[in-house]
Amino acid sequence: MEKTKVAIVGLGTVGSGVARLLLDYGDRTARHAGRTLWLEQVVVRDLAKPRDCDLPEGILSNDLRKITGDPEISAVAHLVGGLEPARSIMVSLLESGKDVVTANKALLAEHGPELFDLARELGRSIAFEASVAGGIPIIANISQCLSANQIESLTAILNGTSNYILTQMDERGADYAAALAEAQRMGYAEADPTMDVDGTDTAQKLAILAHLAFGARVHWRDIPRQGIDGLDVTDLRFARELGYRIKLLAVAELAAEGLELHVSPTLVKAGTPLAEVRGAYNAVRVVGDAVGKVFFHGLGAGQMPTASAVVADLIDTVVGRTAITFRSLELWSQREARVAARDPANISGRSYLRFNVEDRPGVMSEITGALGRRGISIASVIQREPPAGDGAVVPLVIMTHRTTEGALQTAMQDIDRLNCVRAGSVRIRIRD
Amino acid sequence: MEKTKVAIVGLGTVGSGVARLLLDYGDRTARHAGRTLWLEQVVVRDLAKPRDCDLPEGILSNDLRKITGDPEISAVAHLVGGLEPARSIMVSLLESGKDVVTANKALLAEHGPELFDLARELGRSIAFEASVAGGIPIIANISQCLSANQIESLTAILNGTSNYILTQMDERGADYAAALAEAQRMGYAEADPTMDVDGTDTAQKLAILAHLAFGARVHWRDIPRQGIDGLDVTDLRFARELGYRIKLLAVAELAAEGLELHVSPTLVKAGTPLAEVRGAYNAVRVVGDAVGKVFFHGLGAGQMPTASAVVADLIDTVVGRTAITFRSLELWSQREARVAARDPANISGRSYLRFNVEDRPGVMSEITGALGRRGISIASVIQREPPAGDGAVVPLVIMTHRTTEGALQTAMQDIDRLNCVRAGSVRIRIRD
Repeated sequence: MEKTKVAIVGLGTVGSGVARLLLDYGDRTARHAGRTLWLEQVVVRDLAKPRDCDLPEGILSNDLRKITGDPEISAVAHLVGGLEPARSIMVSLLESGKDVVTANKALLAEHGPELFDLARELGRSIAFEASVAGGIPIIANISQCLSANQIESLTAILNGTSNYILTQMDERGADYAAALAEAQRMGYAEADPTMDVDGTDTAQKLAILAHLAFGARVHWRDIPRQGIDGLDVTDLRFARELGYRIKLLAVAELAAEGLELHVSPTLVKAGTPLAEVRGAYNAVRVVGDAVGKVFFHGLGAGQMPTASAVVADLIDTVVGRTAITFRSLELWSQREARVAARDPANISGRSYLRFNVEDRPGVMSEITGALGRRGISIASVIQREPPAGDGAVVPLVIMTHRTTEGALQTAMQDIDRLNCVRAGSVRIRIRD
Repeated sequence: MEKTKVAIVGLGTVGSGVARLLLDYGDRTARHAGRTLWLEQVVVRDLAKPRDCDLPEGILSNDLRKITGDPEISAVAHLVGGLEPARSIMVSLLESGKDVVTANKALLAEHGPELFDLARELGRSIAFEASVAGGIPIIANISQCLSANQIESLTAILNGTSNYILTQMDERGADYAAALAEAQRMGYAEADPTMDVDGTDTAQKLAILAHLAFGARVHWRDIPRQGIDGLDVTDLRFARELGYRIKLLAVAELAAEGLELHVSPTLVKAGTPLAEVRGAYNAVRVVGDAVGKVFFHGLGAGQMPTASAVVADLIDTVVGRTAITFRSLELWSQREARVAARDPANISGRSYLRFNVEDRPGVMSEITGALGRRGISIASVIQREPPAGDGAVVPLVIMTHRTTEGALQTAMQDIDRLNCVRAGSVRIRIRD
């Protein structure tokens, strides 16, 4: 059987999984590729580090030139995290004539345009299925399988760490700190979880999906984002009482005025597929004008789900499918963006609001009055009897009907200025 | 922009949808294909029939030679149902050098091997995403996106008509006949719904998926199958009381002894994704050894979801991706089947049993004794107080623990021979 030489740069968790699939299950890749994918070389930074896989004698080195200098290696799995040296390594690989497969979404979200331009100039390709939603093949589904559609919206849970924490908070009543500690203990959150819980990771993935689905050339930093790190378990409890769950959603929705894009904790109706995504799973709901609603659910991270996506990309690359897709998609090309971002102030939707208010007559009327003056009408309200004692502060929860973001922000400022309202007002979007 | 000529044979519901996507949304296909897909010719059997789409002057005919005789037409959407003349039309298309895209699962399930062999001999390709699960791109996902995995199981709802009827029975308490009539009224069931409700359609689709996922060369007639046409709404009610829904499931599961394959109404735990698939939707749950569980949900039929799959295949075909996939997959090739079917008698699982029994002392002990003698243990039982009156016959519902199919069938025969048991015993599988 024909043999195509491939290589790996970076032998962390995902890299080891990829090596294992190539070495131990070569029959499988051969069956789908019609040739053997031969792991010729693995390059790491630190040779002394203990590894999670057994490599054949002599293929591990710390010298990238072992790959860039070998013209027989045609495709390389680039599994180095972060921005540098990840970026320079990718440039060296492309310049030495390699097609590259990567799982590094931060690198693509930050340097996608220049790297894709470079690959195009050099007649090479970059495949990146593993960069978004791990084991869910969402890149291939959007860019190939649903290509007859105008995608109308994407609604997705793209960060397993955040979803694991939210599930703990929702199902066990744990507060954010306790749920985060549990996620760290279980290996679902890193020692420094900032990028996962503050929405950065989700925004980077959304930027990639928005580019693919809508031709939107948006930098992830320009996507309005809010993480779960400020969430109070009180709001998950009220949400549950109202028949909702809170999820960290990435939303991209097309309207006549442009594209709505944001990442934020969101109330999702209990019983709907997105609301029922639990633990470290990811999910993507795509609406296309021909296909209707399609829903994908799977593990968004982890060694083998991510390695599964990387090896599928390696197969697509060596058989030549990636080159065709890469050429026709013109990813991050210099062509005009097909769609512009909408002004967030004009975007409308429903909201969940919680105010800490004094327990005295007239408060409800002051607050509902402030909403009414901005044309915001109320769908439902929860106000409890206060605990014993005078001058108590009680939570007042309001679910609004649809209103624009601009009107809502103004009304919230008005309300926060009222004497009866204490600090700590909360606003969470609702996605119907 | 480069222009590739394509054609359609058959202008029924799906054909009209495909024509509309090609004619009205050419910019979209051009963007993904890097060239215009130019609809050059449409061939139908009966020119007089009213059509659901406006075609440009002069492209409609009833002469297949307008396509086979035009060497500039490279890819053809074959949207003719049934076996003949669908088979001969496909042969003519392949022999005249066309790559073919089809939605006809019956044709592939029946004549797949010879048609695929012919295409290979002639250096042509057949794409068939639309033949299974309509708008869910399950063919591409199994054959490309999950190609690094050994697929361990497929569990799927593949017939929208049956699922619509089951949803009506479950949610409205309608009996089978009333639910079928409603499905016909709503356009979800044909005037003659036999192939949908007796499991034939599902078995044909399962045969295609089992071939792709496991290399199993099984004829759909050899897949044990049972439809929903014999279901009693009583059993949906008991299932619901026990925390389950009844779904028409297609199951393919790999074990050391071979492949388990069957189509049957099955109890699925309420709250799990498959149990919550409602109405005319389809869903597929795939377990791969690397990726873990992946779940796909979408519309399994209908004009535009199916047309979406056909046009995606046309794009893949004209850009050259299909040829690569078709070559490397060796579909229905003469190579050894990679896996054999398991002996159904050795397959084990849990079952729901309902017996119509006389309401007198000792009956429960006779039945549980008969199960015990075959080594079948009982997980739960429902027996109600009988209606007033002597000699009443009451339902006795038993959920078993895991047992082999062989032991279960023998025990059921033993039980049916007991004096206290009347006709009409029911057995439904449980899928945990």
